[in-house]
Formats: sequence, structure tokens, C-alpha cells
Amino acid sequence: MTKRVPVVEKIMSANDRIASQNRAILDNASIYSMNLMASPGGGKTSLIELTIKSLDNRLRLAVIDGDVATSIDADRAASAGAVAVQINTGGECHLDAVMLQNALRQVELDKIDLLIVENVGNLICPASFKLGTHKNVLIASIPEGDDKPYKYPGMYRNVDALIINKIDLLPYVPFDMDYFRCGVEVLNPGLITFPLSCSSQEGLDPWISWVLQQTQSNVLPNA
Amino acid sequence: MTKRVPVVEKIMSANDRIASQNRAILDNASIYSMNLMASPGGGKTSLIELTIKSLDNRLRLAVIDGDVATSIDADRAASAGAVAVQINTGGECHLDAVMLQNALRQVELDKIDLLIVENVGNLICPASFKLGTHKNVLIASIPEGDDKPYKYPGMYRNVDALIINKIDLLPYVPFDMDYFRCGVEVLNPGLITFPLSCSSQEGLDPWISWVLQQTQSNVLPNA
Repeated sequence: MTKRVPVVEKIMSANDRIASQNRAILDNASIYSMNLMASPGGGKTSLIELTIKSLDNRLRLAVIDGDVATSIDADRAASAGAVAVQINTGGECHLDAVMLQNALRQVELDKIDLLIVENVGNLICPASFKLGTHKNVLIASIPEGDDKPYKYPGMYRNVDALIINKIDLLPYVPFDMDYFRCGVEVLNPGLITFPLSCSSQEGLDPWISWVLQQTQSNVLPNA
Repeated sequence: MTKRVPVVEKIMSANDRIASQNRAILDNASIYSMNLMASPGGGKTSLIELTIKSLDNRLRLAVIDGDVATSIDADRAASAGAVAVQINTGGECHLDAVMLQNALRQVELDKIDLLIVENVGNLICPASFKLGTHKNVLIASIPEGDDKPYKYPGMYRNVDALIINKIDLLPYVPFDMDYFRCGVEVLNPGLITFPLSCSSQEGLDPWISWVLQQTQSNVLPNA
């Protein structure tokens, strides 16, 4: 008789339990938090840099950066003015709740209003691992092409906001915005989207306003 | 006492065993094969389409496409003139040797000279799973940024050729080619590279010549 060991289910339920602890840690410290996901090179770090600069100290920001290797991203966030912690996952293709909990121990939580977690560049695996953050935010990137919602439905289905980055490249690459938006709408009806360019900074203001509004409406009731 | 079950090691060695079988199947049929990897939207399908058209029936081609969902890529390869099989991985973030072996059963192997396997769009997980193909080929994409070798070393270390795609976008995005090439050289000294654009078709000829030369030097001795 073959004995089946439900390893994957146990890993996921353990992860979900730690994710709930993370949420409690963040809520107790009145920290609003976002899990930022994208393909490699979608613009996560550029958006974080710009967000830090545009917020201009209106919020006290921490960034926790997940990468397979290097501290390039955390260094960029720190240079832009945030408290920054780098997680190197080794070969792992996503962050999980335990990694985030360990990183949270390195942050003085009572000095932070907003935490942005920059997940590993990947449109598949991060969607399966809850971190305990308040919002999941995805960056789509124009040069990736307009078929990504159709090909990575798990990711597009499970996010709370969608940034459409690199719109400055629209004149140079084939990208049917209607086809793209149709794919998004089927998977995630009414999803709030922010078309913008980290390069030209076009479209940045609505994103910054949303971040401020989300964070302040979370933080104020407990303040 | 806790009993440790080396699940991951067993999965990998089982995968390697099936990958060896795949290689034998391909060699017996005198088929040369490539495992094509990239980020989502790096240009795998576009390159395959162009390769099929540029080879212009000089090789009999099959394409096996791996995606989380949809048959968009296999449909494109079939339209371009190749025998095409789609693998939908469900949630899986990579192809493995078993998936490839199952897909190979759907191809009339004695009618094929070159097999291109289009892996799932991901710079991490596919690097860990041998398929049994003769060459691993990676596509880097200019708008992804110049730091990708540093951040995804496992992928860059284990490939036999590197395509640098979307060079037509170099005027519009920040990309330091020297910094990029330095990262590649450290991880994979002497790696053959093909800078090209699937959009403008600049730089395509050296890639097509290489594919022809590689395939014919493999196929001819057994022909």
C-alpha cells in the first residue's frame, strides 16, 4: 500500500498560519502593507523608488526586498530614503510568510506607517504564498505584451490593484490595451488600475494618492 | 524522533532519470533539441515564429509549448508552420522531464529534425529541471533591465546560448550593455550571445545560422 503524504497542503496551511501572525503584527503596529509583484524587470524597484520620493516623508516607509541574489533592490530603496531590508531567497522563486516574519524583526515597527514588500520577480509562484500583507499589487509592463492576463490567470485573479507600467513604450511595441483590459476584467472584475510610466512619471499621481488614501484610512482609526 | 523525508532530492533524481530517457528518445530519432527559457514576455514565442519562417523548411520543426494556461503560443507556432504541441501546466511554474516525455508521444518523431521546447515564462524555476534537451537557450529582453544576470544567477549560469532580444528598444530604455555583459561573463564565461530584435529582425541571421549549424552537425552523423 502506498501512503500519501500531503506535504504541499501542510506547507500551505503552515504558511497561512504565519501569514495571519504577520497581519496581526502589522495591525498592532498600525502599519499598512502591500505585497508588490511583477515579472523580472517589470519595474517594481523603480516604482518603489518613485513612490518613496513622491511621498516626500508624508509617510514613514519600510521596504522589504525579496530576490534570489544580490542586495541591488534594497540598496536602491535605501538610497531613495526608506528603511530597507533585503531577503535573499537562495534559489527560492517567491517570498513566503516565514521569510517576511524574519525580515519584520529587523524593522523598528513603531516608526513605520507603510510597508512595501517587493516580491521575487515571477508571475507564477508568489501568487500561491500569502504573506499577511493588506493588499496584493501587481505590475504589468507594456513590453511584456498584452496576453499576460490570459497566460498567468492565477496572478491576475488574486491581486487588489494593477499597475500598467512603461506606458511610455506604447508607441514602440505592439500592445492592444483593449485585449489586455478584457483579460483582466474577466479574471478580476472592477480591478483598480494605474497606467503609468516610472520613466516619464506620467500617471504617477493617481497611484501616489491611492497609496496615501489607503494607508491613512488604515492607520488613522488606530492612531 | 523526527524522520526527515528527502522529498525534493527524490523528485529531482526522478526528473533527471526521465530527462536521460528523453535525450535517448531524441537521439534515436536524430532530433536536435533546445529548451528555450525567458521571463514572461521576453519574446520566446516571437523568436520561435521568426525562426520557423526564416528556416523556410530547411529543417522540419516541432515546437512544444509550456504555459500555465491557454494554447496561445502553440497556436502561433502552428500558424507559422511547425508541428506544435501545447502543455498546460495548471499552476506549475516550469516544465519537467515527465511533461516533455508525455508531449513527445504526440509528435511523429521520425518527421522532425529540430525540436524547440518553449518553457514557462520564469527566470528561476525552469533552471532547476532538466528536460533532456541538447541545449538550454535563454532570452534576455532589453526592457527588463541590465541587472538580470546579477539577480537570477542560477538561470544565467546554466545556459548554452543567450539571446538579447528587443535591441530596437535600446534608445528608449536605460540599459548599460557593458554592465549586463559583465554579469553574464562572470557567471558563464565565453557564453555565445545573439543580440537581435524580433520586431525589426535586426541581428536575426547569426541566430538562424547557429540553429542550422547546430542542428545539422547533430543530425548528419546519424542520417
